[in-house]
Amino acid sequence: MTIVSILGSSIMGTALSFPLADNDHEVRLVGTHLDRDIIDSIKKTGVHPGLDRKVPETVRAYQLEEAREAFEGAEVALSGVNSFGVRWAGEQLASLLRPGMMVLSIAKGMEASENGDLRILSEVLSEGVSPDLRKQVSWSALAGPSIAGEVAARRHDTCVVFAGRDADVLKKLATLFRTDYHHVWTSTDFIGVEGCAALKNCYALGAGFAEGILEREGESDSKDRTYNYAAALFSQGAVELGQMMRVLGGRPETSYGLAGVGDMYVTSQGGRNVIAGRQVGSGLRFSEVRKRMPGVTLEGAAAIVVIGGALPRLTERGIIKPEDFPLLRHLHAVIAKDELLNMPWETFFGAQA
Amino acid sequence: MTIVSILGSSIMGTALSFPLADNDHEVRLVGTHLDRDIIDSIKKTGVHPGLDRKVPETVRAYQLEEAREAFEGAEVALSGVNSFGVRWAGEQLASLLRPGMMVLSIAKGMEASENGDLRILSEVLSEGVSPDLRKQVSWSALAGPSIAGEVAARRHDTCVVFAGRDADVLKKLATLFRTDYHHVWTSTDFIGVEGCAALKNCYALGAGFAEGILEREGESDSKDRTYNYAAALFSQGAVELGQMMRVLGGRPETSYGLAGVGDMYVTSQGGRNVIAGRQVGSGLRFSEVRKRMPGVTLEGAAAIVVIGGALPRLTERGIIKPEDFPLLRHLHAVIAKDELLNMPWETFFGAQA
Repeated sequence: MTIVSILGSSIMGTALSFPLADNDHEVRLVGTHLDRDIIDSIKKTGVHPGLDRKVPETVRAYQLEEAREAFEGAEVALSGVNSFGVRWAGEQLASLLRPGMMVLSIAKGMEASENGDLRILSEVLSEGVSPDLRKQVSWSALAGPSIAGEVAARRHDTCVVFAGRDADVLKKLATLFRTDYHHVWTSTDFIGVEGCAALKNCYALGAGFAEGILEREGESDSKDRTYNYAAALFSQGAVELGQMMRVLGGRPETSYGLAGVGDMYVTSQGGRNVIAGRQVGSGLRFSEVRKRMPGVTLEGAAAIVVIGGALPRLTERGIIKPEDFPLLRHLHAVIAKDELLNMPWETFFGAQA
Repeated sequence: MTIVSILGSSIMGTALSFPLADNDHEVRLVGTHLDRDIIDSIKKTGVHPGLDRKVPETVRAYQLEEAREAFEGAEVALSGVNSFGVRWAGEQLASLLRPGMMVLSIAKGMEASENGDLRILSEVLSEGVSPDLRKQVSWSALAGPSIAGEVAARRHDTCVVFAGRDADVLKKLATLFRTDYHHVWTSTDFIGVEGCAALKNCYALGAGFAEGILEREGESDSKDRTYNYAAALFSQGAVELGQMMRVLGGRPETSYGLAGVGDMYVTSQGGRNVIAGRQVGSGLRFSEVRKRMPGVTLEGAAAIVVIGGALPRLTERGIIKPEDFPLLRHLHAVIAKDELLNMPWETFFGAQA
C-alpha cells in the first residue's frame, strides 16, 4: 500500500484515483484554490461534479489549506493540474515534497524561451522547487490516449505511457497505476513523449476544420462528409510529430506510438479544441471564436501560440528548415495572427505536389 | 487532352473520372461483367447508382464487350477493380494495353506465396500481361485517404499519393489527376505505399471493436465511449505499419504518411469493415458475422487472412520476430481461426508493459 497525494482535482487527476484505489493504494485528493466546490462536493457526497461520478470510497478529499496533512507520508505526488497551472503547482510542491518522492505530472504543453528553444512542462514544474530538493525528487509524466471519463468507468481499456529519465522509477509508478483495464507502458524518451503530448493538441484543433467547412457550405446534414480532409490533416500532423522528434532529440518511434498518433487520434474525436476548430472551419476568425467561447480553456490553441510561435526563431537559427511544419505554421497564422483559414495543401508531405 | 480508359466502374474508379473530366481529359469508363447495370444506368441517365450522382457529361460509358473501342488511342489505363478483381483485370488488360501506356491501379491488398513472401497487387495485375508487353507498360498505384463520394463531390479537399518505380511517369499521371480539390503527391516507395494501403485495411476492421464492446455492455447509448480503446488499437496499428515497412523494405516515413496512418484514419471512421468489426466486438465469432453480412465484400477481413496468414512463415524464417505484429496476429486468430476477441494488450508497444 502506497500513499499517493494528488495536487489538483481536475477530471483527469481525479480519474487516476480509480486505478490507484482499485490497487488498494491510499489516495488523497487535494483541490487547488479553483477546486473549492469540487472538494466540498466530494467531502459531502463523494461525487466529483465534472466527472459526474462518485470517486472511490477510499479516496479522501482535502482543501488546499489541508495540503500539508494530505502529503504526510506520501511516496508519490501526482500533479493533477493542466498546462496553465504548472508554475503554480511547482510553487506549491516546493513546500510539500520531501527527498525521495516520485512526482508524476499530467499536464500537456510546452514553454518556449526567447530564442525559440522548447522546454517540457515537467521541467517547468520542477523549477518551482529549490535546486537542492529538485535533485532529490524524481520527475515523470503521463501521456497517451486517455479520456478521463473512460478511466473512471473502470472497465474501458486504456493504454497510457509513463515517461521520465529513471527507468526504475517508471517501473515502480507503472505498477501502482496498472490494472486489468488501465494498461501502462514506460518510456525513457522523456522529451519525445512530452513533446508529442503537447504538439498533438495543436493538430487536434485542426481536426474540427473539416466539419466546420461542411457547415459553411450548408452541407452538414448532407451525406457528403469531409473525412478525406480530416485524414489528410491527421497525416500531415503525424509527419510533423516526426519532425518535432528531430528538433527535440526525441526517438522517431515515439511519434507513432501512444503519445503521438494514438493521443492525436483520441483528441481529434471531440472536445473543446475540436469545437473551436469547427468554428474556424465555418469561416470565423479565431478572435471571434474566442469571444463565443468565453472562459473556456483551449490547451490546443495555447500550444499553437507557444510552439508555432517558436518556429520562426528555430528557422532563423537553422534548427528547422523553412519548409518544415507547414501545417503548424498555418495553424499559428490562424490562431495567433487571426488570419482566415486557407489550407496550404501544396506545402504538405515534403511539398512534392 | 489525354485519353484515360477506366477498366471497372467501381465507385472509386468512377469517382476518379471527376478530376480527370475537370481537367478536360477524355474519360472512357468500361464496366466489368459485374457492372452491366451500372453501365446501362450511366448510358441512359448519366447516373452511377452506387455513387448516387451523375458522372461528368464528357465521360463515356462502355460495356465490357466494347472495351477494345474504349481503349483505342488511350495513353492511360486506370484499373478500377478492387483487390478481388485484380487477376481478372490483368487478363483483360493483356489484350487492351499497348506499349508505352501507363497503368494506374486502385486495388488495395496483397498476395502471399507459400513461403510467406508478400507481393503487392500491382505485380499480380501485371502478371496477366505477357512478359514482353509487361516491360513496355508502366505500372503505378493510387493510395491515401480518399472516400470516393468526397472526390466526386468535387470540392472536398482530398490528398492522395501515386506510387510506382518511375518518377517521370508518376509526375505525368499526377498532372492528369491534380485539381484544386484533388491534391496528388508521388512516391517511388512502391512496395511501401502498397504495403501500407493493404495493411491499414486490417487494422480498420479492428476500429469497430470498441463500439461493439459498448453494445455488448448495453452502454452504446450511455455517455461513456470507448475512444481510449480505439486510439490504443490505432496506435498499435501504426507501430505495426512501421514493422511492415521493415519486412518489405519500404521507407519508414511511408507508414506515417498519407498511405499509412492517413488512410488508416479515414478507413477507421466507418464502412463495411468497421461494421464487421463492431459485430465481433459485440461478442460474435467472425463466422457468425459473415453469415449476417452475406455477399458483402470485406477487403479488411481478406487482407487479415492473407497478410496475417503469412506471419507464421515469416517468423519461422527469421524475417520477423515472434513478438512483432501482435495485433495483426490476434486479428488473424479472430478472423481466420474464428477465435473470440480477447485483446492481448500486454503484448503491444514492444511489450514493455
